[in-house]
Amino acid sequence: MPKKLQQAPAIDGERLLADLRELRSFGAMGTGVVRPALTLVDIEARLWLRERMIDAGLDARIDRVGNVIGKSPNGGRAVLMGSHTDTQREGGWLDGALGVIYALEIARALARGPTTTRRALDIASWIDEESRFVHYLGSRYFVRQVTERELSTAADSDGIRLSDALQALAPHAEDALQFDADRHGAYFEAHIEQGGVLEGAGRRLGVVTSIVGARQFAIEFSGQSNHAGTTPMRLRHDASMALYTAAVSLDREFRELAGIDTVWNVNEVVVMPAAASIVAATARAAVQFRDTDSRRLDEFAARLPVIAGQVAAERHVRLARCGLVFSVSPAPMHPALQDLIEAAAEARQPGSSLRMPSGAGHDAQIFSPLVPTGMLFVPSIGGISHSFNEDTSDADIVLGCQVAADAVVQMFDWLDEEEARTRQWTGQDRAS
Amino acid sequence: MPKKLQQAPAIDGERLLADLRELRSFGAMGTGVVRPALTLVDIEARLWLRERMIDAGLDARIDRVGNVIGKSPNGGRAVLMGSHTDTQREGGWLDGALGVIYALEIARALARGPTTTRRALDIASWIDEESRFVHYLGSRYFVRQVTERELSTAADSDGIRLSDALQALAPHAEDALQFDADRHGAYFEAHIEQGGVLEGAGRRLGVVTSIVGARQFAIEFSGQSNHAGTTPMRLRHDASMALYTAAVSLDREFRELAGIDTVWNVNEVVVMPAAASIVAATARAAVQFRDTDSRRLDEFAARLPVIAGQVAAERHVRLARCGLVFSVSPAPMHPALQDLIEAAAEARQPGSSLRMPSGAGHDAQIFSPLVPTGMLFVPSIGGISHSFNEDTSDADIVLGCQVAADAVVQMFDWLDEEEARTRQWTGQDRAS
Repeated sequence: MPKKLQQAPAIDGERLLADLRELRSFGAMGTGVVRPALTLVDIEARLWLRERMIDAGLDARIDRVGNVIGKSPNGGRAVLMGSHTDTQREGGWLDGALGVIYALEIARALARGPTTTRRALDIASWIDEESRFVHYLGSRYFVRQVTERELSTAADSDGIRLSDALQALAPHAEDALQFDADRHGAYFEAHIEQGGVLEGAGRRLGVVTSIVGARQFAIEFSGQSNHAGTTPMRLRHDASMALYTAAVSLDREFRELAGIDTVWNVNEVVVMPAAASIVAATARAAVQFRDTDSRRLDEFAARLPVIAGQVAAERHVRLARCGLVFSVSPAPMHPALQDLIEAAAEARQPGSSLRMPSGAGHDAQIFSPLVPTGMLFVPSIGGISHSFNEDTSDADIVLGCQVAADAVVQMFDWLDEEEARTRQWTGQDRAS
Repeated sequence: MPKKLQQAPAIDGERLLADLRELRSFGAMGTGVVRPALTLVDIEARLWLRERMIDAGLDARIDRVGNVIGKSPNGGRAVLMGSHTDTQREGGWLDGALGVIYALEIARALARGPTTTRRALDIASWIDEESRFVHYLGSRYFVRQVTERELSTAADSDGIRLSDALQALAPHAEDALQFDADRHGAYFEAHIEQGGVLEGAGRRLGVVTSIVGARQFAIEFSGQSNHAGTTPMRLRHDASMALYTAAVSLDREFRELAGIDTVWNVNEVVVMPAAASIVAATARAAVQFRDTDSRRLDEFAARLPVIAGQVAAERHVRLARCGLVFSVSPAPMHPALQDLIEAAAEARQPGSSLRMPSGAGHDAQIFSPLVPTGMLFVPSIGGISHSFNEDTSDADIVLGCQVAADAVVQMFDWLDEEEARTRQWTGQDRAS
């Protein structure tokens, strides 16, 4: 390290854990949390969070979709830090909550530092990261990507409309900050890993290199339903066996094409008629794959219909469907921010960090195309997430927050350096 | 053929088709029939059938479980001929109805022949062949294999108890004939093929060699549910992929072990959690296989847990279950009856017959261990059965009935010859 790293004021680990536990109480169920976006308990949690942000000296508001945004009263280039406090239908207690309370604690810690107290850290809890109504509703609304049409037509899987769910929020909503390219110089998100890579490698801090892209296809084989006792094997058009064979062939070929981080999954299986004495007429599944490299996703997407088509021909059934259901591009994290986060981690705890992709999606991927974006992971015990058993040790939670605070301080320095370079090149002074 | 075959009096094809169509009207729905055992429409059909049997000169009764039994007033060794008039939940119009109306028409035809009029042909519609309440309830009750406990505890899949369903039948039920080893010298059943073998071979009459035995296993793999984005392939315990792989491996190995008539099926697939983004924790399926040879069934049954166990080990999951759900022994048809039926077919229509196993179960398998048993098949158009599209051409229906009548006449001759041989050996005269 050429120069001594500037570190943040010490965060208050007890206060951090106390806030996480208090947030957990909104929707607590056993060891888990049931707090989907815009449920009454989620709205209560947002009102609580707004109070904590106000206590931290921020201009805190809930916007019309439910984002809780705490704007720093300070000017200059700002770091934006956020995650989400909504949970899955049956979720864990940390998930996005960790990153939101980190941001809150870091805002409080920075306020106590002699130099950091003048820095602008805006913080947020983005609504509906878990896609009850709209994928990444909050972060996409913040960067003005959500259309009025989406807001008026979206509904959850039970048919409850977003517009109706927002009624309960309306009395608390006001005009709030949206993304400002002049103000926001970096986006930073901390999150639990939700996988077992850190734990497996014996590391405590993950420096995210990229959020993987994902493609999902629906495949369906169409055969002919027949009596499984009376129809000789050679006369069958068995859709189920085509599906099993396609899954195994895909797995074999994908294994050959895969990079170190490539993952895939064949699930959501439906075989009909579902009877042991009947040869299946229809068999379908979802095929999902993820990678940090778009070209590899393209390669998989190109192979999939070829493999499925070959299997259909061999098995004397029809490939009735092989269609893209969704596609999400990989979102690279900014190299400079990766370096900063890694340096912050290694300064606090040498040998504790690991560069790794994020296999899960995060609000950070919405920001990645717009502004330098970075992410920090803390370990998930047993790699478990989206489960009542989701957990992280207190020590890892506290260490992660301090390192995140240190990283934020270095982001401010980096923004200053960038600013200086920009002034040099353009001759302008963009700083307000 | 060493001697000229004795043939039956001509059956009345129009009357046969008219009765089949009238029976079809009980529970008709589009081209199909909805007449499960002991529904009100099934009971109405039984009352109608009893009247037709009485018209044919038989002592016709409905027994306490719903069998409609027409006992011939004639003495001597009897042929027992039957099938079933209940349908699946959504069934075809012929299925078991064909064999029952054949028996009725043959009883009427025999009554008109100078010698056959003295012959004893008992006929029956066995209840619940389709297993709404109890597998082969009617034929098993007739041969005294049903326990009072079964009768009092059985219920259908909606929870309706057999004992309640029998209430509606009670006013019509009376003591009726049961299996009598002294009287009944042969059991004969005609049925639609329910497969495409005859059609594929261009034949019109199937001489059943054996009703295949069947085994069914439940297999279940137990892995670990995980995020399908964040869990590297090498760290997964994916139950679904184990199931797909096991199905493909079973199919490959079974193909090598199979005889010409062996069939198998992997269905009733359940993969959970059923989400494209989640690695499945549980994957289960039913594995069913059938063959005429018990030793082959044993061989398959022995290989199944080995294959499933290997796959579980390779895929890092646990084989949580690999258990027998049911086992039905193969039921060979009597060689002499096969010869008689074949001879009858070839005499009426040379080159029209094919010896073949029955891949489906039939009431005949209940009789096969007790009395010489034979079966005749007529073609199913497109091999389709247990479907609203089930059908057989009028010409095939009429030809099949005439051949069945001829076969019954020869069974009487054969019983006479057997009787004569028995007298020779024992010095007794068992004929009444």
